[in-house]
Amino acid sequence: MNFASDNVYGVHPKILAALAEANLGTAPSYGGDGLTKRAEEKLREVFGCDLRAFLVTSGTAANGLALSAITPGFGAMLCHAEAHISVDECNSPEFFTGGAKILGLHGPAGKITPAMVEKTLKGFIRGEHDPKPKGVSLTNATELGTVYSPQEVKAFSDFIRPKGMKLHMDGARFANALVGLGCTPAELTWKAGVDVMSFGATKNGAMMLEAVIFFDLGLAEDFAYRRMRGGQLMSKSRYLGAQMLAYLEDGLWLDNARRANALAQRLATGLAEVKAVRVPNPVQANEVFAVMPRVLYDRLLSSGAHFYDWMPDSLGDGIGPEEVFARFVLSFATPEEDVESFLRLVTKG
Amino acid sequence: MNFASDNVYGVHPKILAALAEANLGTAPSYGGDGLTKRAEEKLREVFGCDLRAFLVTSGTAANGLALSAITPGFGAMLCHAEAHISVDECNSPEFFTGGAKILGLHGPAGKITPAMVEKTLKGFIRGEHDPKPKGVSLTNATELGTVYSPQEVKAFSDFIRPKGMKLHMDGARFANALVGLGCTPAELTWKAGVDVMSFGATKNGAMMLEAVIFFDLGLAEDFAYRRMRGGQLMSKSRYLGAQMLAYLEDGLWLDNARRANALAQRLATGLAEVKAVRVPNPVQANEVFAVMPRVLYDRLLSSGAHFYDWMPDSLGDGIGPEEVFARFVLSFATPEEDVESFLRLVTKG
Amino acid sequence: MNFASDNVYGVHPKILAALAEANLGTAPSYGGDGLTKRAEEKLREVFGCDLRAFLVTSGTAANGLALSAITPGFGAMLCHAEAHISVDECNSPEFFTGGAKILGLHGPAGKITPAMVEKTLKGFIRGEHDPKPKGVSLTNATELGTVYSPQEVKAFSDFIRPKGMKLHMDGARFANALVGLGCTPAELTWKAGVDVMSFGATKNGAMMLEAVIFFDLGLAEDFAYRRMRGGQLMSKSRYLGAQMLAYLEDGLWLDNARRANALAQRLATGLAEVKAVRVPNPVQANEVFAVMPRVLYDRLLSSGAHFYDWMPDSLGDGIGPEEVFARFVLSFATPEEDVESFLRLVTKG
Amino acid sequence: MNFASDNVYGVHPKILAALAEANLGTAPSYGGDGLTKRAEEKLREVFGCDLRAFLVTSGTAANGLALSAITPGFGAMLCHAEAHISVDECNSPEFFTGGAKILGLHGPAGKITPAMVEKTLKGFIRGEHDPKPKGVSLTNATELGTVYSPQEVKAFSDFIRPKGMKLHMDGARFANALVGLGCTPAELTWKAGVDVMSFGATKNGAMMLEAVIFFDLGLAEDFAYRRMRGGQLMSKSRYLGAQMLAYLEDGLWLDNARRANALAQRLATGLAEVKAVRVPNPVQANEVFAVMPRVLYDRLLSSGAHFYDWMPDSLGDGIGPEEVFARFVLSFATPEEDVESFLRLVTKG
Repeated sequence: MNFASDNVYGVHPKILAALAEANLGTAPSYGGDGLTKRAEEKLREVFGCDLRAFLVTSGTAANGLALSAITPGFGAMLCHAEAHISVDECNSPEFFTGGAKILGLHGPAGKITPAMVEKTLKGFIRGEHDPKPKGVSLTNATELGTVYSPQEVKAFSDFIRPKGMKLHMDGARFANALVGLGCTPAELTWKAGVDVMSFGATKNGAMMLEAVIFFDLGLAEDFAYRRMRGGQLMSKSRYLGAQMLAYLEDGLWLDNARRANALAQRLATGLAEVKAVRVPNPVQANEVFAVMPRVLYDRLLSSGAHFYDWMPDSLGDGIGPEEVFARFVLSFATPEEDVESFLRLVTKG
Repeated sequence: MNFASDNVYGVHPKILAALAEANLGTAPSYGGDGLTKRAEEKLREVFGCDLRAFLVTSGTAANGLALSAITPGFGAMLCHAEAHISVDECNSPEFFTGGAKILGLHGPAGKITPAMVEKTLKGFIRGEHDPKPKGVSLTNATELGTVYSPQEVKAFSDFIRPKGMKLHMDGARFANALVGLGCTPAELTWKAGVDVMSFGATKNGAMMLEAVIFFDLGLAEDFAYRRMRGGQLMSKSRYLGAQMLAYLEDGLWLDNARRANALAQRLATGLAEVKAVRVPNPVQANEVFAVMPRVLYDRLLSSGAHFYDWMPDSLGDGIGPEEVFARFVLSFATPEEDVESFLRLVTKG
Repeated sequence: MNFASDNVYGVHPKILAALAEANLGTAPSYGGDGLTKRAEEKLREVFGCDLRAFLVTSGTAANGLALSAITPGFGAMLCHAEAHISVDECNSPEFFTGGAKILGLHGPAGKITPAMVEKTLKGFIRGEHDPKPKGVSLTNATELGTVYSPQEVKAFSDFIRPKGMKLHMDGARFANALVGLGCTPAELTWKAGVDVMSFGATKNGAMMLEAVIFFDLGLAEDFAYRRMRGGQLMSKSRYLGAQMLAYLEDGLWLDNARRANALAQRLATGLAEVKAVRVPNPVQANEVFAVMPRVLYDRLLSSGAHFYDWMPDSLGDGIGPEEVFARFVLSFATPEEDVESFLRLVTKG
Repeated sequence: MNFASDNVYGVHPKILAALAEANLGTAPSYGGDGLTKRAEEKLREVFGCDLRAFLVTSGTAANGLALSAITPGFGAMLCHAEAHISVDECNSPEFFTGGAKILGLHGPAGKITPAMVEKTLKGFIRGEHDPKPKGVSLTNATELGTVYSPQEVKAFSDFIRPKGMKLHMDGARFANALVGLGCTPAELTWKAGVDVMSFGATKNGAMMLEAVIFFDLGLAEDFAYRRMRGGQLMSKSRYLGAQMLAYLEDGLWLDNARRANALAQRLATGLAEVKAVRVPNPVQANEVFAVMPRVLYDRLLSSGAHFYDWMPDSLGDGIGPEEVFARFVLSFATPEEDVESFLRLVTKG
């Protein structure tokens, strides 16, 4: 029963098979190979638009590099206070951008609003004494398992684009958001005004693979240099291309996400039926957050279940002193039986 | 007939198999898994000493991160003028170190000497108007297919250590150097005074895998933060650990290097027998450099052979106007028949 | 009636005279001159200890450079949420440190406590996923016109020193704090555990002059390189040395601060007597903050008084919708009559 | 007899007087004052064009900031191998640009040519494996006391502009170049294609003052942020404005440079008449370089003359083992008698 994260699970068999298939013969290095090129082409097809895609090996690198294309060191990026770029990446965004300010805004259920952005920008009235606001980063699905709809995303873009600011989407769990919303990749990104995104695959079945995808092609101009300088141009890039092709082929990525989301719904439903447990946020992707008594929490952990407690900061009403805010992440590979066993464990208490 | 680089070849079957094996069940993420830990342990065994090893996905990242542990932004690293860190990494060392100067020294056959370092340091007499010399980086095997012996490495360490400078080894082709020299990993590194090395595996049979290895444990103190910040802590780190274990298991890495080096010897011997061709440098690893008439060069390329011409800067006597300085890289997977076919092609001219 | 800032006033006549005096003959450049050396010597005398002092031209540079000696790019500095380094310097601390996180903590009256630091550090339990806490920065006098006593400063040092963290003091208004507290420079700095400070002179009568002063001499080791690299080693450094000597000579700096503080007391007393006005924080240096009705605020501005409104964030109970939180800064050169005129203006309403 | 540098001399009396004059009353801080604004206006007049000028306190900061507006961290700047930005600023250009490569080209008499730039660019054929060439920096007058004529400057611009590269001029001794050439500020800068320059005043009579001047107004867009972030926005900016106005007023800057250049001519003529001494480069500004026997060099130094020996790298034919390459810098304030005394000292040997 491992709900600690989606990245505790391995690689989807089809992706593993694709790596073996890619292993034949020679291929040009540093991205000149056919698989890398076809992966970019496939992403164009999936998103239904022209775009530039750059494959990298980690989500932190994808975020840092993507942000560096938006903001110089004297700029500021606005995001949720619990965003990965704000609190989980050891100053990596600051590193890749050359020192930009990552400004975390507080909002319920892991989400921010254009009104919060507007209020923050109103404080930037002193010219160069403040950093220059250069963009907004939305995590979709969010760190709290909620999602931004295309309409919500577009509201940000509509607000910031006239100010010359750019919109980044951290899509480490993009597939889960997409499936949760039931919209197309195009609708949730470029049609909603996203300029650049970190397109995650690792958490949803790949081995180590993310893509920085530019819908604003101008931002991509020198990006090959940024990626190389960041140590993210793989010499044997074909193995990134192969992962991406298998990930997208026949909708594997959506199937994986659908499965994970469905398990999250099952878990959430089960937990909500337990009297002592609250599920405060809507469950819209593959994560479930629940407030539970510490005694229950302790019992579950000691019974062998793996999951983490979470900062209750984003809970409007907070939690009681004897309560824990617990996070459960469901993966494409989480055994359905584990969810059922876990729920039995919860209720039998 | 592809001699363009060792990274145009794929992954060794045993390493691929190890990835599949690693795919079972769940594992703690971000390096907390058993394979990653065992990989570090195995490296301790291979080098016969205590050490800290940090797995990353690219050689450029390994170099940049390793250098960042040696030099701050106001420092200088001395290396050969053709070193990868100097001319092949798009300012990545400057990026990771926060702006350090990478000072390329000119020496024959891809090698520098302590005397060259000494002469350069003598120019640093103006205190803070110059950067502060913080270390020397040796590439072993070098970009020109030559090697530094343990004695040669130690001569650098003996000279710079009393000055508080550190010694880095770029071991992108470390296995090839080792096999070429017939010495132990310990003799060529910590026993010769190497403080930190970039231990390459990708070129010699892995998929994407390098390790930053610290023999000076003090330098490793905060390195986990550096790696994370650099976007090089993989969430599914087990697949790096699995590669490294398979790479080192039963001496696979040395077998691979031995094979590549032997092919290089065969090619060099064959080329040297051709009247119009010169092999100016000793062939001590898996690369062969040859001066040949441009007409021959053109004919070989148009016959389907893949290889690059190289800057003749490090050739003491230079090359003629109708000559080309060509590089051939042999890999663990280069078909022996390709070497023979190529030599037939050369001689039939 | 200009209370906008202490830096709207000019240079003290004695410091101006010192510049003229320094203008004779030749002098070694880049800090090799006698005045620069004597300035450092004089600071040793003033602080009663061995120290290293580096003269620079701006407070922002002093802060950035000082912090860069404490924290690498993967580190975090804790400070008050309204600290200059956090919100007034356009990512300059991030720039000089190579991307460190400046973590602003919220506390009343511009001050933080060791307990707040402790609580924050308790959140840093995830190793390299967080930045590494490297230090605390206290502004003394604070941005809200309050001061930290030697005992309060020492409490921070006692708490963080065992954790390997360093203590920085932003002393842009250090003289005002000192005079407000009635203690010695030594008591408020190294005796209280300060490792490095930004010693301000510009706001208190100099032209452009700050010093980065190291009480922890080890931190100063490579600082000459940092200053040079930061563009802060003046070729005609003698004019910085001359300012500093004149500033310290015969206690000019303390006299200036005493005068400014006394005017602040006079203004605060006068304002507190006005029914519609509140002075919420203790006035302990040369700044007065007052909550006043917006109609009064508007009337004062339109009567020609210069002063700024301030973010009311640090006011525990906030301000009413028709109120303004106004800041008044008093300087060594503010005419006494301006304070009286202003108070008449306030009360006549 | 001090010929060590032009910055060993003090401040011109008129500039000192201007500082005193600027000291009256209050003035908006951080560049909002009238003197700073008038200084920019005056520069527009002097250069006869629209421009943006940003005052800073050091030449190193001016260069670093100017370059940061041209090149990102993944870029390369081409300059002479002995350029100040290449060898005298402790990695400051790398710091301000976030790690750009400063590529020094070797050319006689301190000068490079478009052909050298062309040859270097021809080596940049590997895309993102190399940094991206972003600009050329010309020092005028050069470090070797020679000058680039408007035609020579324009030849660079004509060559690099179509490639999207920008032209920077390090004008630490711009006035000396101008006077040496007898052309107008406009002719030597924007009419010749200079995009941004570091306009030096410190060496030629100011206290601490340089300006970053943008002729390409687009490059200036966010420069206020860069300057602030770099710690170079002075709170009491009026004292920079005052220096600049006095410097330009009634052509003081040109008079100063004319005087220094004339002294250089006198010294060069005198030295050239000495049999044992060679003046290898044309003397076109305020510096004289001479090859002399070491015995003479030693005698001169021990007689109390101050001057430095110089790297003979840029001398095509080098120097003999018993020779020294000596530099003499003449200043607006160097006593004429010192030159004559020195020449007597040389000849009496």
